[in-house]
This record gives sequence, C-alpha cells and structure tokens, in this order.
Amino acid sequence: MRTVATVAELVAGLRAGDRRAVARLLSLVEDGDRGRVRRVVELCHPITGRAEIVGLTGAPGVGKSTLASGLVAAWRRQGREVAVLAIDPSSPLTGGALLGDRIRLQAHALDDGVYVRSMASRGHLGGLAWAAPHALAVLDAAGFDVVLLETVGVGQGEVEVAAVADVTVVAVAPGMGDAVQAAKAGVLEVGDVLCVTKGDLAGAERTVAELEEAQRDGGLVRTPVLRTNAIAGEGIAELVDVLSALRDERCADPAHRPRHRARAHLQVREIAVAALRRRVDEAITGELLDAVARGDIDPYAAADRLLADLDLPDTTGGSEGAG
Amino acid sequence: MRTVATVAELVAGLRAGDRRAVARLLSLVEDGDRGRVRRVVELCHPITGRAEIVGLTGAPGVGKSTLASGLVAAWRRQGREVAVLAIDPSSPLTGGALLGDRIRLQAHALDDGVYVRSMASRGHLGGLAWAAPHALAVLDAAGFDVVLLETVGVGQGEVEVAAVADVTVVAVAPGMGDAVQAAKAGVLEVGDVLCVTKGDLAGAERTVAELEEAQRDGGLVRTPVLRTNAIAGEGIAELVDVLSALRDERCADPAHRPRHRARAHLQVREIAVAALRRRVDEAITGELLDAVARGDIDPYAAADRLLADLDLPDTTGGSEGAG
Repeated sequence: MRTVATVAELVAGLRAGDRRAVARLLSLVEDGDRGRVRRVVELCHPITGRAEIVGLTGAPGVGKSTLASGLVAAWRRQGREVAVLAIDPSSPLTGGALLGDRIRLQAHALDDGVYVRSMASRGHLGGLAWAAPHALAVLDAAGFDVVLLETVGVGQGEVEVAAVADVTVVAVAPGMGDAVQAAKAGVLEVGDVLCVTKGDLAGAERTVAELEEAQRDGGLVRTPVLRTNAIAGEGIAELVDVLSALRDERCADPAHRPRHRARAHLQVREIAVAALRRRVDEAITGELLDAVARGDIDPYAAADRLLADLDLPDTTGGSEGAG
Repeated sequence: MRTVATVAELVAGLRAGDRRAVARLLSLVEDGDRGRVRRVVELCHPITGRAEIVGLTGAPGVGKSTLASGLVAAWRRQGREVAVLAIDPSSPLTGGALLGDRIRLQAHALDDGVYVRSMASRGHLGGLAWAAPHALAVLDAAGFDVVLLETVGVGQGEVEVAAVADVTVVAVAPGMGDAVQAAKAGVLEVGDVLCVTKGDLAGAERTVAELEEAQRDGGLVRTPVLRTNAIAGEGIAELVDVLSALRDERCADPAHRPRHRARAHLQVREIAVAALRRRVDEAITGELLDAVARGDIDPYAAADRLLADLDLPDTTGGSEGAG
C-alpha cells in the first residue's frame, strides 16, 4: 500500500478485512476534511446495514467501560466480530481523562475479532453528532457483526447519538438515591434496556425495583430492567439475549427500520447544517459584529441581515478536495 | 401587574429593578418561543454592556459552587449587585443532579443584592450556546454589576460559552495527578485565571507549581495561578482583585472589547444557524430518508438535494408570534 492511499483504495482494503484501512478511514472522518469525509461516506454508505448497532450510555462512574468489556466478551463467545466506538466527551478542560478507564477494554487488545476506537467530541459545535454516524457507517461497512457505541450521558449530543443505535442500553449504578430519582423520567425515555451495574453492591436490587416502579407509576411502556455484575460475568448473557431479541424484532421487516431512518435523518441534517454554519461564519463581518457590540443593531436584526445576504451553498462549498 | 405581561412591560419592570420581571424574562429565553425570545433580545440588547461578566468553569467536583459562593460574598462586601447564571448540563440521564450542590449558594438566598438562576443545557443541539448569551443580555440589562456564568467543563458548548465572558476562571482541584497532566494544555487555553481550589489540602501548592511549570515549559503567556480556600475565605479577595484588574485592562478602550465582539458573534451565528436548522428539518422528507436508509442515495447527495431546494428563511420564519 502506498503511503498516501486514496479513499477508494482504503474502502477496498476495508472490504478485504484490512484493519489499518478501517483505522485510516476513521481518522479521515475525525479529521473532518470535508471532501474526504464526503468520499468516505459515498463509498461506505451503499455497503452498510448489516451490523447490529448497540448504544451504551449512562452518567460518569456507573461502570460503562466494565460493562462494555463484558458485552464484548459475550459477543466474542458467540463468534461475532465486534467494534467499539467510544465517544469521548473530552473538552479542553478534561482532556479525555474522564474516560481514561477505556483501558479496561485492553483485555481484548490481542483479539483480532475486536476493534476499539475512541473519538473525541471536542471540536466545533455539533461535531459529535456530525462525525459519529459517519464513523458508524465505516464500521458497518467494514463487516463488524456488532458495533457498540459508548457515550457518556452528559450533554444532548451524546443522547442524540445514542438514539440512532438499533438498541440502547442505559447503565445506572445502584444506590444513587436522589440522583436516580431525578433522572428517572429521562432514563426511561432514551433506554431500550435499563441495566443496573455493580449488581453485587447492596442497593442494586432496590434500584431495579425503583426503576420498575417508576415505569409503572408513570404508566409507561415497560422497559426491561436487568442487573449485571460485569466483573463476575453475571447477567451479561441475559443482556446480550435481550439486545439481540429487541434488535431482531425491530429490524425483522426491512421496510420498517426506524433507527436506520433516524441515522439517515441525523446524518443528512448535520451535513446540511454544517454546510450552512460554515456559510454563516464566512458571511459574518467584523463591521456587523462591531455594530452589535456597540448596540447599534440587535443580534436578531443582524442575523436577519446575514441570512438575507446568504447564497445557498452545497455541502462541499469551499471543500479542500476529495482524496 | 397583569398575569400576562408583554415583553415590553417586563423589560420596563426589569429597568425599574423588579426581580420578578428578571425571572420571567429568563424563563421566556429558556422556553425558547422564537418570537418572544427575539423581542426580549431586541429590547434588552441596547441597554447592555455595563456588567462585568465572569466565567467560572472546571471539571465536576473541583469545588466550583463553593468558590462561586465565596466570590459572591466578596463582591457583596464591595457593595456590588451580583447575578449568578449556572448552566446545568442536565441531560435526560442526569436530570440536573450533577449540580445539586448549587444549594451552597443558598447562603445568599435572603440577600436582595444577589440573584441566582440555573439554566438547563438540555434541549436541541446547540441549545446552550443559543440561550446563554440571551440570558446574559437580560441580566446585564437588569443592571447587575457582576454576572457570574458558571458552567461545567465537560463538552464543547460550555467551553464556548465560557469564552464569551469578559474574564474566565478555571477551577482545578489539587492532587488530581494525571488528570491535571492531561488537562493542562486545554486549561491554559480557556482560562484567564487558574484557581487551585481546596487550598488547605495537601498537594494544593504542588498543583499550583505544576500549572506554572506547564506554562513555562509550553512557552505560553503566563496565566495567573491562584490558590483559594473558599470555605475559610482565603485567597478570594486576591482573586476578585485579579479579575477586576483583568477586566478593566480589557475593557478600558470601548472600541476594543474583544469579548463583547465574541458574544455578538456567538449570538448572531447561533440565531442564524438555529433558523437554518429549522428549515432543514422542515425540508427533510420521509421519502428522502427512506432512500438514504435503503442505500439508494448517500447522505451527502441527499443533503445537497435538500440545500438546493431550500429557500432562505429569516430568523423568525414560522414564529409562534411576539409577546
């Protein structure tokens, strides 16, 4: 392989099972060169649709990485190839340290059937929502049987991304007391399965009961609540079975794949909005900002003036060129 | 006052010092009715520019709320009226519990010279960046001498908002070891002042030294590093002095107020992008999404088709009407 491969060559490599090609395509998506990202999506999109995409989210510290490692081991025992895409909410302030425990997945580092990749959500606003569906398309096209999309449940972007998985697991730690109380309504919204982690701790059983009770009280459709102890391997096989059953049910009829449509929606919208955001930034002049800063014109009137002057771009307006 | 006041009446109340009017205007901003938000911004913007806007950010658990309470007390001793706008990164998953310790500010609950308000960053993508500058405009227009904008340093949105404050304090807890190491480059980027909290703990002095060393090693402009112990009241007066000096230096020449311009930029851009995002969502058809989900068309080509069909809106296209 030449040092500089074209996107087409990389996609050919990906189809042939070359993991370095997967890594390089994901790097192209993360780097965000618009022409190259477009080419990656164009070439990968037609060969997607086979992978089971499982979302895993929850507040920091609930044990997502340990649970992820347990899930990966269970899928591997079924002979399935697994990719883990961990969305890292690194900001300039945390530098990704929050998810340093991603290291737990290193148990699978020598297994060729497991591919782990972190992507930072830092970068421009909406960067996560923009890049994650593209990355999922690459991993789906690469032929992984399961793609685990791990996000931290802080911030709307992560929640929106989790919503495009075929099925989403929300991890809850036992004994969070008031925090669980406060979170309940929302937890029940985004999860297809609720998983109480650290099942050996006192309070795990009570948290399971509280979550079930909250659903009854709210008159909600019952979301399964499972209890796992990932370190001891307890409850993981059951969780894997529930996930597969849910996914099969949802995707049985190819004409009714709501999550495929949700992924398409997120992807198309974010591509279009990113293009428009670039045009807005290009069109904003220092004069206009000075006028706003001085109070001569209010921000809404300034935005109106901007929009009136804007020619509509296509998505690659000003592209750095396709690879 | 009638039960349903117009925005103009509320702004008149705000100028007359009516705190209920402040609360109701902030609720209008948070609710997000586009016509009303526009009216709030139109009427408040011309009377802004006087408040000292201080950003306070840092990872969860570093003691931001305790520091905020100490800063508020110090400003009050100077006879200044203070508003605290706490941006709460509540997602459906955390329900705001993360910042439940906002309760520490209740020490000031009976002081008429202090106004505390939390705003959730949940809602549509870009919701925080969109709403926070509007809320700052309301508090500035209300005549507060200082507005403290408190955000959690997780996620790009919060960082971007902190960047529009006149001066930003980044709080760092002592003894975070590797986490501090990893965070250094970024911390030095967004903070105008670095504040090592919990200054009574062993390791505080070392963290101060590490932060100063990192700046020297990086050849960076020296950002002041202070050590505080907010509970004992140590270091707070010094911090307040440094903040005021920085702010005076920056804002001495009205023609050169970079942060005022940054606020204007964020506000104008997010207003324009929100309008465009709505139009994109309205223009996306089920047919187009099905074609993408089936693989008949790739997401970039779909976005291009969408943008080509789009007529440019103004910012209130489809507004629910002004109050």
